Amino acid sequence: MLLFFATNHEHAGLLFALFAILVTAKIMAEVFERMNQPAVVGEILAGVIIGPSVLGIVQPSEIIDVFAEIGVIFLLFNVGLDVKPKSILSVGSKAVMVGVLGIFVPFVAGYWVAWLWGGSSIEAMFIGAALVATSVGITARVLGSLGLLNESTSRVILGAAVIDDILGLMILSVVSSVSQGSINYYAIIGTVITAVIFVIVVGAVGAKIFNWLAPAIRNLKISSPFFKFGLILCLGLSFVALYIEVAAIIGAFLAGMALSEATEDNPKMRQLSHGVMEFTVPFFLVYIGMQLDITLFADLEVITYALVITGVAIVSKMLGCGIGAINMGFKNAARVGIGMVPRGEVGIVVAQIGLGLAAINDREFAAVLFMAVATTLIAPPFIKLLAPKRRPPEDDIHISDVVTRIG
Amino acid sequence: MLLFFATNHEHAGLLFALFAILVTAKIMAEVFERMNQPAVVGEILAGVIIGPSVLGIVQPSEIIDVFAEIGVIFLLFNVGLDVKPKSILSVGSKAVMVGVLGIFVPFVAGYWVAWLWGGSSIEAMFIGAALVATSVGITARVLGSLGLLNESTSRVILGAAVIDDILGLMILSVVSSVSQGSINYYAIIGTVITAVIFVIVVGAVGAKIFNWLAPAIRNLKISSPFFKFGLILCLGLSFVALYIEVAAIIGAFLAGMALSEATEDNPKMRQLSHGVMEFTVPFFLVYIGMQLDITLFADLEVITYALVITGVAIVSKMLGCGIGAINMGFKNAARVGIGMVPRGEVGIVVAQIGLGLAAINDREFAAVLFMAVATTLIAPPFIKLLAPKRRPPEDDIHISDVVTRIG
Repeated sequence: MLLFFATNHEHAGLLFALFAILVTAKIMAEVFERMNQPAVVGEILAGVIIGPSVLGIVQPSEIIDVFAEIGVIFLLFNVGLDVKPKSILSVGSKAVMVGVLGIFVPFVAGYWVAWLWGGSSIEAMFIGAALVATSVGITARVLGSLGLLNESTSRVILGAAVIDDILGLMILSVVSSVSQGSINYYAIIGTVITAVIFVIVVGAVGAKIFNWLAPAIRNLKISSPFFKFGLILCLGLSFVALYIEVAAIIGAFLAGMALSEATEDNPKMRQLSHGVMEFTVPFFLVYIGMQLDITLFADLEVITYALVITGVAIVSKMLGCGIGAINMGFKNAARVGIGMVPRGEVGIVVAQIGLGLAAINDREFAAVLFMAVATTLIAPPFIKLLAPKRRPPEDDIHISDVVTRIG
Repeated sequence: MLLFFATNHEHAGLLFALFAILVTAKIMAEVFERMNQPAVVGEILAGVIIGPSVLGIVQPSEIIDVFAEIGVIFLLFNVGLDVKPKSILSVGSKAVMVGVLGIFVPFVAGYWVAWLWGGSSIEAMFIGAALVATSVGITARVLGSLGLLNESTSRVILGAAVIDDILGLMILSVVSSVSQGSINYYAIIGTVITAVIFVIVVGAVGAKIFNWLAPAIRNLKISSPFFKFGLILCLGLSFVALYIEVAAIIGAFLAGMALSEATEDNPKMRQLSHGVMEFTVPFFLVYIGMQLDITLFADLEVITYALVITGVAIVSKMLGCGIGAINMGFKNAARVGIGMVPRGEVGIVVAQIGLGLAAINDREFAAVLFMAVATTLIAPPFIKLLAPKRRPPEDDIHISDVVTRIG
């Protein structure tokens, strides 16, 4: 408790950083709302502006990283609260098609382009892997802000994004092993099987267990028992997911989904959850923007490579996912395709690991980072453009309203 | 963003720690509620149980410390939301009396006892300083849980606790300087004047400025604009307070108070704020419990010294504050006196700094820590016992309801 009482300038600095991130994010969100653009884009750009690239007011640090992680965890938890297990099961086969093709096409295209550009096969594998996984966090935020979470295309997107997050992590571990010259197929197969069992079991029986527990939770003497149980389940399943080598956000999403039926008529629980989300999500968005070091783009070759990779990332994802969803009709397939474009944090993770393993160089790193941020910035306006035209529900407690309003 | 995606066992550990803290805190809160005792005591004991002393499931770390700080900051912000500036001004002179006498008596008593026990004058000064400052966080939580925040005695306690937090920090800096053999009176006087001006100016005009800004905030296009403005003001004033060498929590309290009038009819803003508080406060309470290393108490002399210091801390604070409040009547004076007893985190800070400066030894450190935790554990049941008997307001959005219900 020493930090914030004693005059510790390092920690006064942390408090200032949290303040600066929130105020910049909200100013940029307001600017983008007034331009009739998604607030999420403004908040990511806020990160570029206050981060090391431009003003350098805030430097990335472990604590801001943790806040960003908690932010994306609670974002996915709140998304889960608005998604009933049945609604995902009903689009299950479509989501699997979209997820798998949305992995396969970008990986192959990324590998091929990087190889043609003169990369080694290791480099090409990392570029391919970085193009794979959709940022379910960004996509969910945009869909939520448009009040579209319950559209069938949105449910396909969320289901497919969960699937491709899992597969993306598997590909990353395979690629990492190969780049180190060793590969343990048994370990990888074991991890895949564990992950699939976790998602299916928690997704299928989580809500049933919770519905059965609900009367006991209602009788607890602590205040807001459903909210507290939700917090605990969210952190607990995030930990379990991470522990079995699945992304923490998958656990958080499943926790929200498990509670979605029993807390449907509990606006207080949902508003308390939204408070935590609204406080922490800006750190996640700003953190993504902070990762982009714009000084690396003084080099024309880096710019060209970055633009090519970004183009490949957009086209390959739209193609892969669009083909996977083609039996929903062309317009819906286009919605699914564009909804899957943002790479966000997962592409950045792949790039960081590749750089750490010396499998890619810092120019390739910059190009992948550019791709991750650019796909995240480009997609939301198109998602909005292609969205069915209607106002978000007036209901105060749904994510669609709390996340951000549209004009 | 590397942490929670890649398999980083250190950070899986952090997520587990957050989970373990919340689940243990809430189980203990439920147990204490069922025994008709304040939940806050249960949550502090949860920290003793899972901390290094007993089970060792969770170790204190910088990140948990930051969560604890954010927790106490949002606790004080929410307390401020329920306290209108006028209501504090109306008890201003009483609060000053209680605050000043509540500093003077414990300091002198602590110094005297430590000196009689054979301590040097430096040691005695640190023991005296550790007895000075009331934990406004603990007291506010208990008063809030009893629905008493708007009682006149509660307003005196909150005002006096703010005053004595400020004076306590001044005494700590004087004592630290003296123990290092140097003392800069000009710097100390400058700090005191800055602090007093900050509290008076923000306290007096903060609400007026905010009431004037409210229509503009209402017209913002971002969702929940009052909540977001509140978050920013809370973190901003906490930072300013810390920067001018006042505790961050004082800034958070003033931020909440500035918003109290304009957000009175805004249940959504308040519930979103409560969400953040409910998520973060358990980390603050558990963190306090984790500081207590019970193995140091194998030594009978340490136990005796700890019990003596604790007795002196309780009696001197009740006497000092009770005398300060005696013109409110004996019963109210007793309420104010017992309400000021918990030392919590401030006593722990003094002890840590004293140990760091080699001004006190580890046995004295253990005794002060015991005093800080024991006064925090002992006071709440008595605060509850002496409280005017009535049910907390049914209103869903006040701190009294969200914090914890009483049976």
